[in-house]
Amino acid sequence: MNNRPKQLKLVADWERLQRIFIRPEDDDCKEILVKYMEQILFGLHDFINKNVGVTEEISLKDLTANFRDTLISPEPEKKLADVISDIISQIAPKAVNVASPYFVGHMTAAIPFFMVHLKAIVAALNQNVIKLETSKVLSVLEKQVLAKIHRLIYGLNESSMTNLTLLSSISESSKTSRLNRTSRLSEDFYNTHVQNADTSLGSFTTGGTTANLTALWVARNLFFKPFKGFEGIEVEGIAQALRAYSLDNAVLLVSKRGHFSLKKSGGVLGIGNKNVIPIDVNAECRLDARKLSETIKCIKKEGRTGIISVVGVAGATETGIIDPLEDIADICQEHKINFHVDAAWGGPVMLSEKYAHKLKGIERADSVTIDGHKQFFMPMTCGMVFFRDPLAMNHIAYHSNYVNRQGSVDLGIKTLEGSREANSLILDSALKIMGTKGYALMIDHGIETARKFADEIKKRELFELITEPELNILTYRMVPSQIRKRLETVDKDEKRELNEKIDQINITLQRKQREAGRSFVSRTRMSYKTGLNGSEQDDEVVVLRSVIMNPMTNIAVLNEVLDEQEKILKSIDWINY
Amino acid sequence: MNNRPKQLKLVADWERLQRIFIRPEDDDCKEILVKYMEQILFGLHDFINKNVGVTEEISLKDLTANFRDTLISPEPEKKLADVISDIISQIAPKAVNVASPYFVGHMTAAIPFFMVHLKAIVAALNQNVIKLETSKVLSVLEKQVLAKIHRLIYGLNESSMTNLTLLSSISESSKTSRLNRTSRLSEDFYNTHVQNADTSLGSFTTGGTTANLTALWVARNLFFKPFKGFEGIEVEGIAQALRAYSLDNAVLLVSKRGHFSLKKSGGVLGIGNKNVIPIDVNAECRLDARKLSETIKCIKKEGRTGIISVVGVAGATETGIIDPLEDIADICQEHKINFHVDAAWGGPVMLSEKYAHKLKGIERADSVTIDGHKQFFMPMTCGMVFFRDPLAMNHIAYHSNYVNRQGSVDLGIKTLEGSREANSLILDSALKIMGTKGYALMIDHGIETARKFADEIKKRELFELITEPELNILTYRMVPSQIRKRLETVDKDEKRELNEKIDQINITLQRKQREAGRSFVSRTRMSYKTGLNGSEQDDEVVVLRSVIMNPMTNIAVLNEVLDEQEKILKSIDWINY
Repeated sequence: MNNRPKQLKLVADWERLQRIFIRPEDDDCKEILVKYMEQILFGLHDFINKNVGVTEEISLKDLTANFRDTLISPEPEKKLADVISDIISQIAPKAVNVASPYFVGHMTAAIPFFMVHLKAIVAALNQNVIKLETSKVLSVLEKQVLAKIHRLIYGLNESSMTNLTLLSSISESSKTSRLNRTSRLSEDFYNTHVQNADTSLGSFTTGGTTANLTALWVARNLFFKPFKGFEGIEVEGIAQALRAYSLDNAVLLVSKRGHFSLKKSGGVLGIGNKNVIPIDVNAECRLDARKLSETIKCIKKEGRTGIISVVGVAGATETGIIDPLEDIADICQEHKINFHVDAAWGGPVMLSEKYAHKLKGIERADSVTIDGHKQFFMPMTCGMVFFRDPLAMNHIAYHSNYVNRQGSVDLGIKTLEGSREANSLILDSALKIMGTKGYALMIDHGIETARKFADEIKKRELFELITEPELNILTYRMVPSQIRKRLETVDKDEKRELNEKIDQINITLQRKQREAGRSFVSRTRMSYKTGLNGSEQDDEVVVLRSVIMNPMTNIAVLNEVLDEQEKILKSIDWINY
Repeated sequence: MNNRPKQLKLVADWERLQRIFIRPEDDDCKEILVKYMEQILFGLHDFINKNVGVTEEISLKDLTANFRDTLISPEPEKKLADVISDIISQIAPKAVNVASPYFVGHMTAAIPFFMVHLKAIVAALNQNVIKLETSKVLSVLEKQVLAKIHRLIYGLNESSMTNLTLLSSISESSKTSRLNRTSRLSEDFYNTHVQNADTSLGSFTTGGTTANLTALWVARNLFFKPFKGFEGIEVEGIAQALRAYSLDNAVLLVSKRGHFSLKKSGGVLGIGNKNVIPIDVNAECRLDARKLSETIKCIKKEGRTGIISVVGVAGATETGIIDPLEDIADICQEHKINFHVDAAWGGPVMLSEKYAHKLKGIERADSVTIDGHKQFFMPMTCGMVFFRDPLAMNHIAYHSNYVNRQGSVDLGIKTLEGSREANSLILDSALKIMGTKGYALMIDHGIETARKFADEIKKRELFELITEPELNILTYRMVPSQIRKRLETVDKDEKRELNEKIDQINITLQRKQREAGRSFVSRTRMSYKTGLNGSEQDDEVVVLRSVIMNPMTNIAVLNEVLDEQEKILKSIDWINY
């Protein structure tokens, strides 16, 4: 065994190079390749298990010290075996153990081990779903998986309510999607579209950002659609489009707590990111439907600004809050405005019988974003976007002579991205392995553990809950008892001063906890009504943010996180802040 | 062993669900997981080896028959073992064997087997490089790998010419990048920027399309940059930007043979895709520099249209042709216009000592696109974009409170995409395993085999070479001898008729070859000067397209491909077409 790796030594030599493409045929070589994979599966795993925390902070200078060489070596430097060992011994310890149950700060966490197998299959097949000629059955599978999730959103499922009007034909759904948004789509509808080469229920994307961008790109093009004498915004550009529609401006209306990809989309799409208008939220951090309605009326009255879309959030990045989707749907229906839901985080909650009702109203959206690498527990990176109208994506169609020819069934015709890996195979397999009930266990665990965590925070004197967990995200902050008592009595200016002191405490606290490497919560800033005694003061304060998606994160773990924070507070000289 | 899999059976049950996150600790369970991976590595491999062809055509109806169910099962349907077996027995045979040496139709081919291992590592670590807090050393590694490729393009390497002015400091490079494009960047420059948190040499993207989009997004924002009274196009949008700059219109100038993602970028960015102006190519399918120059002068003279960027292609999708980069650089320098090179395909040719000179002039571009999943032989999907000016990407920066805070080193601040997997680990490892010389062997093999193939096509009476292979792509068509002779004598109209007949023959030929499933070439349409006898007739004709990147594709294989085509021709009743 000892001199076996020599056979595989990769030097810049034609015969040996070919070997890495033919792949080894004899059993000894196979054995080595399997050993490598074993090393990957369990070497990394053992490391992670031994280091249940997040990995301790090292300075950026130390971290970068060995990553400064910028010349590519002419000759091969390492064998695969050494590359793998180096990754396990040198890279992994300096990466972030996102799989730790104590890593509760971001939307990245442990994934089921089988996801690594599935990703390896996708790489081994190396299909490119941009076109049928390089993917064949994987294009077909992608359409099926998209239809499954589309049906979860828009169709009649076991958990859907009954007694609803059903729509089946394309033209019907296309015509009525604006007017009759309350209808769920029938089984006939899905039979018609699941493998229909002329229609699209949605698309895989590389993440929520490009999913949102795709949805708003479609919405923009739908709003400024072609008419006699105008070829449409996609062809003529925004300046021409505004002239053609006699408008000065076009805007997107978005919850103040919407993801920053929405603002970015406004910039990319040429609308201008200042025209992505934030709509105020209420005390629960939900988009204020009354203010949305007022804003729309005001814009309509003025008459020179087009509203391309209203975006509701289902699972806000900072709070997990779901906007009042039904109210927004009503408003959009009344004013005939496109309605997009960013459910990148919250979408998979529809898999839970217990909590699916929280997303009620999503079935009335024109388009929906859901991430695969978030609560579908897929590996980085996978997003999806869905359209209620199976013809909506025609507004972003591009053809060329060499791929995506007119009339072909190539999936790359109607996507932002070009070449794409067959991520649908991962989601399809995961749905088969887990079932909706398997996913529901994880979703329910997150929501219910977050509630227990909120109760614990409220019980502890040193903590203050900032946002209740509607789903599995909550924000809170640490407030020393002495300051807390004073907060209740002082006036506005003093309150602001005290809040700034509390901010500093929480910034230090979060940093120290991260540096210790045992656990990790993130931090952000939130508007916070501190006017407990009736005033309406709305300060931005620093808050700690917990995202509970790892099934191994339980209330015992979270209590340890709080205990550690209390301990850190004692070590901080906060009085002098 | 036989009842072991039962333990792993995944049902919707909390205790068992947790197991898939904890990962099995005992050796027996480990053994099973390794067996699965073995199945993936060699089950797929054996299938592919037994079926060296491309997989036979089946009708779309047959293909879709088993992919019509749109309900997600509530209970788990399958165990991982069954999922893997089903993929090997049901999916793989209906996928496309892109790894076959006989698959020479598209830019997707065999990848070294170690890529599957590396992709598995990326999935197992599951880092998200959008921010340091979820990636740490992988963010650092990404900066290093980007610097390595940036240096390959812009820096002094062993293969670069000597006696060039060197630039080192940021401000210097920023100030002079427009004026002094001929300078290669020094080692000092790379030492300054490789791990500089305030500057960016480029970014990983999810493919060439988003790389081009990112480059043109930056170019758009640079062109309409902020000044007193105007906040910039990203903030205010295109209509305002045109007003601020007293222009009616903004355009991109692109080779007629540029990739369709360039036109799409114009549409997405709000410029309007009809403002992506195709510049004619010469007889060799290269952008005609004289026509570019004339077009620019004409636009400048008219005075109401801004030129955002000129895009040159290094390795055109259809022909592999490289535009005259030095001429374009001269013209852009003269007129102070942004210059982008789409080297998605051709970029890695810079790794070849023998052929790097073909890309001369690329070091004068403001930005460059290179794909990882093309000639870096990485698995789907990975693209990259590079900027000569390390401050250029500041024009697309976005911040938020929860990630990418102002002043942080988060890589997600200046990217189109949001969450991203750590693909840099794959490229970094591959560069170490292969060295530039290992890559050069593959690049050189492709170019030299394509030349042999061209010679063979010219030798054979039934074939006509349409475009010479500058790199490893060529186009040709089949022309029955009787028609060929007539083509040389007839007038324009008859020529067109004959060409239409030849088109039909080649369309049928390509389809029949694909359906047989032994080998695959693609087809496209090309402008083709058929005026051999002096006329300047420029017909669009159907051509067959070969891309030779698989090291296992040699001239013997390609001769078989031609033999098969000759045989198919005999079976076609082309006389009556």
